[in-house]
Amino acid sequence: MEIEIATIGGYEEVGRQMTAVRAGDDVVIFDMGLNLSKVLIHDNVQTEKMHSLDLIDMGAIPDDRVMSDIEGDVQAIVPTHGHLDHIGALSKLAHRYDAPIVATPFTIELVKQEINDENKFVVENDLQKMEGGETMEIGNGLELEFVHVTHSIIDAINPVLHTPEGAIVYGLDKRMDHTPVIEDPIDMKRFREIGREGEGVLAYIEDCTNANKKGRTPSESVARRHLQDVMTSIEDYDGGIVATTFSSHISRVSSLVEFAQDIGRTPLLLGRSMEKYSGTAERLGFVDFPDEVGMFGHRKSVDRTFKRIMNEGKENFLPIVTGHQGEPRAMLTRMGRGETPYQLDDGDKVIFSARVIPEPTNEGQRYQSENLLRMQGARIYDEIHVSGHLCQEGHYTMLDALQPKHVIPAHQNMKGYSGYVDLCQNQGYELGRDIHVTHNGNVISLVE
Amino acid sequence: MEIEIATIGGYEEVGRQMTAVRAGDDVVIFDMGLNLSKVLIHDNVQTEKMHSLDLIDMGAIPDDRVMSDIEGDVQAIVPTHGHLDHIGALSKLAHRYDAPIVATPFTIELVKQEINDENKFVVENDLQKMEGGETMEIGNGLELEFVHVTHSIIDAINPVLHTPEGAIVYGLDKRMDHTPVIEDPIDMKRFREIGREGEGVLAYIEDCTNANKKGRTPSESVARRHLQDVMTSIEDYDGGIVATTFSSHISRVSSLVEFAQDIGRTPLLLGRSMEKYSGTAERLGFVDFPDEVGMFGHRKSVDRTFKRIMNEGKENFLPIVTGHQGEPRAMLTRMGRGETPYQLDDGDKVIFSARVIPEPTNEGQRYQSENLLRMQGARIYDEIHVSGHLCQEGHYTMLDALQPKHVIPAHQNMKGYSGYVDLCQNQGYELGRDIHVTHNGNVISLVE
Amino acid sequence: MEIEIATIGGYEEVGRQMTAVRAGDDVVIFDMGLNLSKVLIHDNVQTEKMHSLDLIDMGAIPDDRVMSDIEGDVQAIVPTHGHLDHIGALSKLAHRYDAPIVATPFTIELVKQEINDENKFVVENDLQKMEGGETMEIGNGLELEFVHVTHSIIDAINPVLHTPEGAIVYGLDKRMDHTPVIEDPIDMKRFREIGREGEGVLAYIEDCTNANKKGRTPSESVARRHLQDVMTSIEDYDGGIVATTFSSHISRVSSLVEFAQDIGRTPLLLGRSMEKYSGTAERLGFVDFPDEVGMFGHRKSVDRTFKRIMNEGKENFLPIVTGHQGEPRAMLTRMGRGETPYQLDDGDKVIFSARVIPEPTNEGQRYQSENLLRMQGARIYDEIHVSGHLCQEGHYTMLDALQPKHVIPAHQNMKGYSGYVDLCQNQGYELGRDIHVTHNGNVISLVE
Amino acid sequence: MEIEIATIGGYEEVGRQMTAVRAGDDVVIFDMGLNLSKVLIHDNVQTEKMHSLDLIDMGAIPDDRVMSDIEGDVQAIVPTHGHLDHIGALSKLAHRYDAPIVATPFTIELVKQEINDENKFVVENDLQKMEGGETMEIGNGLELEFVHVTHSIIDAINPVLHTPEGAIVYGLDKRMDHTPVIEDPIDMKRFREIGREGEGVLAYIEDCTNANKKGRTPSESVARRHLQDVMTSIEDYDGGIVATTFSSHISRVSSLVEFAQDIGRTPLLLGRSMEKYSGTAERLGFVDFPDEVGMFGHRKSVDRTFKRIMNEGKENFLPIVTGHQGEPRAMLTRMGRGETPYQLDDGDKVIFSARVIPEPTNEGQRYQSENLLRMQGARIYDEIHVSGHLCQEGHYTMLDALQPKHVIPAHQNMKGYSGYVDLCQNQGYELGRDIHVTHNGNVISLVE
Repeated sequence: MEIEIATIGGYEEVGRQMTAVRAGDDVVIFDMGLNLSKVLIHDNVQTEKMHSLDLIDMGAIPDDRVMSDIEGDVQAIVPTHGHLDHIGALSKLAHRYDAPIVATPFTIELVKQEINDENKFVVENDLQKMEGGETMEIGNGLELEFVHVTHSIIDAINPVLHTPEGAIVYGLDKRMDHTPVIEDPIDMKRFREIGREGEGVLAYIEDCTNANKKGRTPSESVARRHLQDVMTSIEDYDGGIVATTFSSHISRVSSLVEFAQDIGRTPLLLGRSMEKYSGTAERLGFVDFPDEVGMFGHRKSVDRTFKRIMNEGKENFLPIVTGHQGEPRAMLTRMGRGETPYQLDDGDKVIFSARVIPEPTNEGQRYQSENLLRMQGARIYDEIHVSGHLCQEGHYTMLDALQPKHVIPAHQNMKGYSGYVDLCQNQGYELGRDIHVTHNGNVISLVE
Repeated sequence: MEIEIATIGGYEEVGRQMTAVRAGDDVVIFDMGLNLSKVLIHDNVQTEKMHSLDLIDMGAIPDDRVMSDIEGDVQAIVPTHGHLDHIGALSKLAHRYDAPIVATPFTIELVKQEINDENKFVVENDLQKMEGGETMEIGNGLELEFVHVTHSIIDAINPVLHTPEGAIVYGLDKRMDHTPVIEDPIDMKRFREIGREGEGVLAYIEDCTNANKKGRTPSESVARRHLQDVMTSIEDYDGGIVATTFSSHISRVSSLVEFAQDIGRTPLLLGRSMEKYSGTAERLGFVDFPDEVGMFGHRKSVDRTFKRIMNEGKENFLPIVTGHQGEPRAMLTRMGRGETPYQLDDGDKVIFSARVIPEPTNEGQRYQSENLLRMQGARIYDEIHVSGHLCQEGHYTMLDALQPKHVIPAHQNMKGYSGYVDLCQNQGYELGRDIHVTHNGNVISLVE
Repeated sequence: MEIEIATIGGYEEVGRQMTAVRAGDDVVIFDMGLNLSKVLIHDNVQTEKMHSLDLIDMGAIPDDRVMSDIEGDVQAIVPTHGHLDHIGALSKLAHRYDAPIVATPFTIELVKQEINDENKFVVENDLQKMEGGETMEIGNGLELEFVHVTHSIIDAINPVLHTPEGAIVYGLDKRMDHTPVIEDPIDMKRFREIGREGEGVLAYIEDCTNANKKGRTPSESVARRHLQDVMTSIEDYDGGIVATTFSSHISRVSSLVEFAQDIGRTPLLLGRSMEKYSGTAERLGFVDFPDEVGMFGHRKSVDRTFKRIMNEGKENFLPIVTGHQGEPRAMLTRMGRGETPYQLDDGDKVIFSARVIPEPTNEGQRYQSENLLRMQGARIYDEIHVSGHLCQEGHYTMLDALQPKHVIPAHQNMKGYSGYVDLCQNQGYELGRDIHVTHNGNVISLVE
Repeated sequence: MEIEIATIGGYEEVGRQMTAVRAGDDVVIFDMGLNLSKVLIHDNVQTEKMHSLDLIDMGAIPDDRVMSDIEGDVQAIVPTHGHLDHIGALSKLAHRYDAPIVATPFTIELVKQEINDENKFVVENDLQKMEGGETMEIGNGLELEFVHVTHSIIDAINPVLHTPEGAIVYGLDKRMDHTPVIEDPIDMKRFREIGREGEGVLAYIEDCTNANKKGRTPSESVARRHLQDVMTSIEDYDGGIVATTFSSHISRVSSLVEFAQDIGRTPLLLGRSMEKYSGTAERLGFVDFPDEVGMFGHRKSVDRTFKRIMNEGKENFLPIVTGHQGEPRAMLTRMGRGETPYQLDDGDKVIFSARVIPEPTNEGQRYQSENLLRMQGARIYDEIHVSGHLCQEGHYTMLDALQPKHVIPAHQNMKGYSGYVDLCQNQGYELGRDIHVTHNGNVISLVE
């Protein structure tokens, strides 16, 4: 059976992931993501109203025109998890394909919301739920399997397409976490089985975000322990404490909520995306927040909540807000500018349970945000975080588990791939033979 | 009562700490340390055989000649904990003073060994034990108190000299740890009392090692959780695993021992200083290693142990060795060079439970050591560590607890002090008035 | 005679310089500057319309309220050169003092323009010109001397106040340049005389911008040679070349103009501040641009010029534009966004004859600007620059020349001062005795 | 005609370059270099006495066993310039090939010395001189041409093998210097011709040392101007001045000699390799040092010279010594340790006309060396240097000039190649198609 992999997006950068695998006459698409930084570099762009071709020209969404060279029928579009760089282009591109969107329940829910927010296109693809650990028949003699993985968002999977020529493992994005805070550990047992059963693994597409970093990405439970240490250390403080993290990072939000209660404060989730992700997670039963946890998304209700906090005493609350990267319009930045009813006082604590994404634009914005907060007297605790992506020892272990015939580094640029290529070469792979460093819009033929 | 503080050593650099406080006619000396890097920059220097004056000229030990300007009797020499930069000059300088050395039991034991190893001088000062939480009368109307603190070595204290003019708190070295792995938490309650009782705190001498770092130094239990995560993740590996950390860091060694057993390996402590510190800690009852834990210091017995490991199977052992900074003569570096019977194979794991001390000499040596290990096939896990020194939020909390009239930054150079001076200025202190940035060999008169 | 120095602004940061020296009953003020970053961190602030008290609260201009503690008459306000951090607060504060503004011709001209642009206050102080090398009697037995120095703007001086107690040398800002491109070399001979004549130097206030940098700041002629090398190397390119640098850096602009002609292109100075500084310099005879050099400040005339360039061929012109730090509204950033009629093509060259000011906000903006330019196909040459401030060997030489009794580091924060304090300590000075690390709003009494 | 390129060494690292090109039945080898760092990481290794197989195992010299797969006769071994990473393995490997060594006169002279110093092997290959700009017939219908290039050593060339299928341009190592200090500029005119004549360029092998650096590598004349600025600035100093640079960098040594005389000092070249390279260059007429310039290589004569300097007055001399990277046994490090008769005094100047090679081992050694020098009172001027390798705009220009069908990045690891691959991809090349990122021991077939 002929096997081809089209590396459509995310092979020269982080963001706008999209990959298509053709096995015989059937095609499966993995991810359709958005590169938000390509949008934000321009002033005043509203993606909801834009046409896909303009977004392609900007480099914001995958250029899927190469799909016309792929001879086969698209049987499924499979977003691996709910981050925007994996689902953010579905509302712009999915309607071009006559195929269902298959994803885990939490991801499907987020996809739905993306589609509903879209103004330009009507996306009517079927939305089909499949859990980690489940499989479905697909096309002619193929099987799609979801292997449960751990990442900085819940309900993430690595899809595996089983073909007569071996398995295609799409390995974006994950960390090897044996003690995640909510959810099950990564299913390494299943990866090891896949590596050894049948024809083995024909190709492994790997997330190279941290491929130049030594060692092992720590478990979420290490970040949790760190966060607990910080929060307990300020238990006796009788003024304001504010925390921020990635809105979509439900495990972290859940830890913040729990420790807020441990130190006698009511946790409040404030900001549009805080409400969106946590609300969705609670509705689907991934997390069960205590009743007292408030969630407020609209600016008016957030401001009303801030007023209530000021009236009832800042010492009784922990606002958990957006703004961990210093985004100019996010809640925490607004608090730093004094634009909300919440008044920071000398000695108030601000907890960044996030790392600055190491890119000068973010660094500049975060620096400004911290300065504004400090000018109001805030004391800052930062970098209470662990990455959601494998470091080198995780890559080493995955190679050992899967023993793939071909590896395809993804989710970075050349410099980012270099650590992974070095690792693979040490393990006997060879560039151009079985290591495929590729680019957007390429088609790799694995079996002819 | 006249109060003077002589800032003898450690006020322009890390290392060779020594401070004398005169209250009326009585003098107490805190620390007599060694700056090892000033020794190592020269080839082939053996400090045991050197005269104190030569070591003073090299900048290796405190220049205590300023003591002749201090009119009073030295009543006690008080090393705060057992690190060399705090006790390493006792064997060269203590005999000049007719006063007992007063320290906690673990520290006293290490001081004894220092004195025994000395070839040039005979040190016969009384060695007097006092536990954290205890006090003793000293001189004329003074009281010496030991407040228990948490650091990267056990049984550390901050000595407090209570005078009629207020307390002098000598704040080197500590982290604010509420959940250390062995031992009690830092006694913040007592610091807060000292800040509020009697005349309050006249002067606070602060450890500025991390004064330019934001946030809070995490608890040892965070490093422990991180270490557990790493070791559990390689539980199934059936080859060699080797770990290294600071020999004097008994809590960390103890965690390594415990997790070694958890993953089914016999822990072995190898190297002269590993045996020294852990042996001492066990003898004094600070830690109770399981019977199977072996400790071997002499090179012959270490090599014999390595042979045994090779015979019985590397998969059954966890050697815990010296060499975390890539020191050229340490055990791990020798293993990298293939100079020991322990043979590293492809895929073997090396765990650095330590951070590289950020100084180009260390960084160069560690880089070489890692390269040698990698050339043998080793996989490296590093930076599994937390600092033993307060970061900015710890300094902020200490100021709040003690409310000292005067602050004296120590244990750094000017650049290192800058973050602490900024912090104090924000809290209303003023350089030259009540912030005393000083230098080695100075005398600060606080009450005339 | 009593001598006091009030360190009003610029002693905790770069920007908003202001220092007052009282000698007997007479006071001289050096600099009244603006800290622009304190303005820009807020959205939509227009300083021209703001009251001085609000700007003081923001930390944007010096808090001169300490002047009420200085008993004496202000005889002169002396801005040392035309940069905003030295003259930018004159329009807000100078009218409070009944004294002339004394400065070199170029600086006076820029001060005039500042005063004219001001909307809130009417500044009617006399504007008095004095050249480098000249002196004037001032107050009662004092003499003000201007020593010519070299900096990144022309016509800079270090003012010296000669008092019966010795000279006060106000050493901001300079580089020790023996071969500047236009103007005379720094007058080191005069500094050496001042160090040796009469009572010598009582106090030296030093510019510590680069006090943590080793070596010597290179001469402007080194930057010029570097720039020539770059421009000659692209002499044969037949498309667009664009350059940017500090608008106030007349020597650099002059080199750009000259090399543009050498490679057969007409230089055009575009942008409001390009026109302002270069126009002023030419009017005053500091530089004599060839006739063909166009200068256009208003956006309309700039856009008209861009259209002309596009019509007559980009290969015939070198636009020299604003935007070297990636400022969002500057000309080069607008070119990157495609907002001007100048169309960048693949292979076009952009020359940044400037270094990014090392602060995350600038780094973020510059990164965005370069990205936008690269997205249009531009090839980038950057860091073609030398600093305008002394490095450590310059400080060493100044100490040797002046042999001041007291030194006062300025123009930085504590961290920035550390290298200078270390240097002075090595030369025998002592912190708190004759090294005065101070803060804004302090008064140092040197002779009582 | 079949064309193959064997990438034997230097395709995964800097050092041990070796490449073979087969065209039909004829083979030409470019470079046979040594990776010195692989030797130095071990203690006490003497390469002169070692067998080539052991050196291959250490990764110190190219593993040329792949040559047995290349079917053809080696017609020439062509080292491109005299640096050890290009000629250092000739003494170990050249005797295996029945072919002359063809190089420029200066390179041939250095090769001779390498061969003479060798203890293990007898190398009797013909040594054949050919100047830059010359050509020779080779094998069957091939022509070897030397294009003169500019690098940090004189008499460097890029060899070009003209074949019926197009030219193979071996582009290691060079900078695009239009105003080198001695010698002719790089022959860009010839490169542009080669790009356009006949079949054009079939393959271009590129030096990627600086492929991740923006902009243009400045000309040697920029470094010279910088050096002049530094030396003139200390013209009046009446104590010791010492300089160090790369011994093989004849242009730089020549500038140092010239400026030493300009400031009234006798230049002395001290150290074994100083004597070797400068002596050779003078003997061959590349440079004509004034008579007073002394060169001393043996330690005894160096020490005698130092004694003479101390007797006649340090202010009359400029010793130019080895040790720019802080090498532990080099002359400058020995001076820092006080092991030579030359006594450093407070204020003496040390000029590093070199950049630290950015690798932790060097950085650590250089840091130690500077510390030792400073402990003796030395004032340090460093980084007075420009690189000898192309930055990105040089690569861009070479691509434009040669328009090669295939590009092969060399002289780096994957991370180092990334900037070059990005650049090529922007110019329309594609990885795996016409960009060949390869590894040691590979054979690339270009024409079958």
